[in-house]
Amino acid sequence: MNMEYDSSGLTGLDRFTRANLINSLSGYKPVSLIATCDSRGNTNLAIFSNIVHLGADPALVGFINRPREAAPHTLANIEATGLYTINHIHGDLVQQAHQTSAKYPEGVSEFEACGFTPEYTTGVSVPYVRESRVRYRLRLVEVIPILHNNTFLVIGTIEHLEFPAAIVDADGFLHLDQAGSQVSLGIDGYAAVGPVSRFPYARP
Amino acid sequence: MNMEYDSSGLTGLDRFTRANLINSLSGYKPVSLIATCDSRGNTNLAIFSNIVHLGADPALVGFINRPREAAPHTLANIEATGLYTINHIHGDLVQQAHQTSAKYPEGVSEFEACGFTPEYTTGVSVPYVRESRVRYRLRLVEVIPILHNNTFLVIGTIEHLEFPAAIVDADGFLHLDQAGSQVSLGIDGYAAVGPVSRFPYARP
Repeated sequence: MNMEYDSSGLTGLDRFTRANLINSLSGYKPVSLIATCDSRGNTNLAIFSNIVHLGADPALVGFINRPREAAPHTLANIEATGLYTINHIHGDLVQQAHQTSAKYPEGVSEFEACGFTPEYTTGVSVPYVRESRVRYRLRLVEVIPILHNNTFLVIGTIEHLEFPAAIVDADGFLHLDQAGSQVSLGIDGYAAVGPVSRFPYARP
Repeated sequence: MNMEYDSSGLTGLDRFTRANLINSLSGYKPVSLIATCDSRGNTNLAIFSNIVHLGADPALVGFINRPREAAPHTLANIEATGLYTINHIHGDLVQQAHQTSAKYPEGVSEFEACGFTPEYTTGVSVPYVRESRVRYRLRLVEVIPILHNNTFLVIGTIEHLEFPAAIVDADGFLHLDQAGSQVSLGIDGYAAVGPVSRFPYARP
């Protein structure tokens, strides 16, 4: 049996039910931890799931930042330093990673509060998450406001990336299943992914 | 052992290796089939993986369309009719769905060429994919050009959605694992997702 909703049915749902439904409808998400710091080097770590591949040449990745009043720190830090790192969440890190979504007081770093370790590269102000095994550093390219709901598409270009040598195919494909990278679903769901099958280039 | 690349290392890779690497680095994607039609009702069906949740109220979903010269039909149809449907790909549909990425001649509908069935709702010009069990219909809100690589963020608002009643929790959360919805990875990888665990709202 199917269930269905039209626009007015959606409007009639309470706020939490609608959020759960719409958030899970668009599918699984590449959940990751975004690490930033302010101009004085104070770190921030936050979980983001709305990350989107934009292109490989130039290497561009976007993520959706919620309205500034709801999620101010990551975006302000990126605007201040121009840099951020995106760090995959593996199965053994899900509980800690989810905990970064708690509203800690100003001045508390989620690195410390949630048991993650900042790992610095010489000459770079923003840290990686040491516990993450697939991670990349971006330089801010553009922040595009999405006026319909006051969110932002934050676009960065990849300056550095790192992954376990064992997960890469000869042609550059990363078997994230072998790294245990998780997906998220809706607001509060997480899952591991089964073995990945690659398909040949499709021809008519 | 880790492998790493910086910007110049990425530039030094051949085009295909870089595409595979960057495409898989950002993580698993909520791959789906987007169905459209032109103003005369000719259908088009194409596989898209760069789909992103933008917000639940209003219910907005975005997807990234490649440059117009590379992927013209879906975007042109959406601009012509203002409507499109996004249809999940389940495990039994992966091979057919991947086949929609082949470059069929103008005038050939991927519905027919790849063995999918258009399913029409009374009074609505664009079809759903009958074989898909989780699907939603959107009305175009805005096409935002991403000038750095000539792609587009296409934003739509959800007008209708449909899913098996058995997969929804009482609070609206959809267990897509129970629907067998797939993720994609990189350009040519697909996988099923394991059981989804939900976590409580995080507090400091």
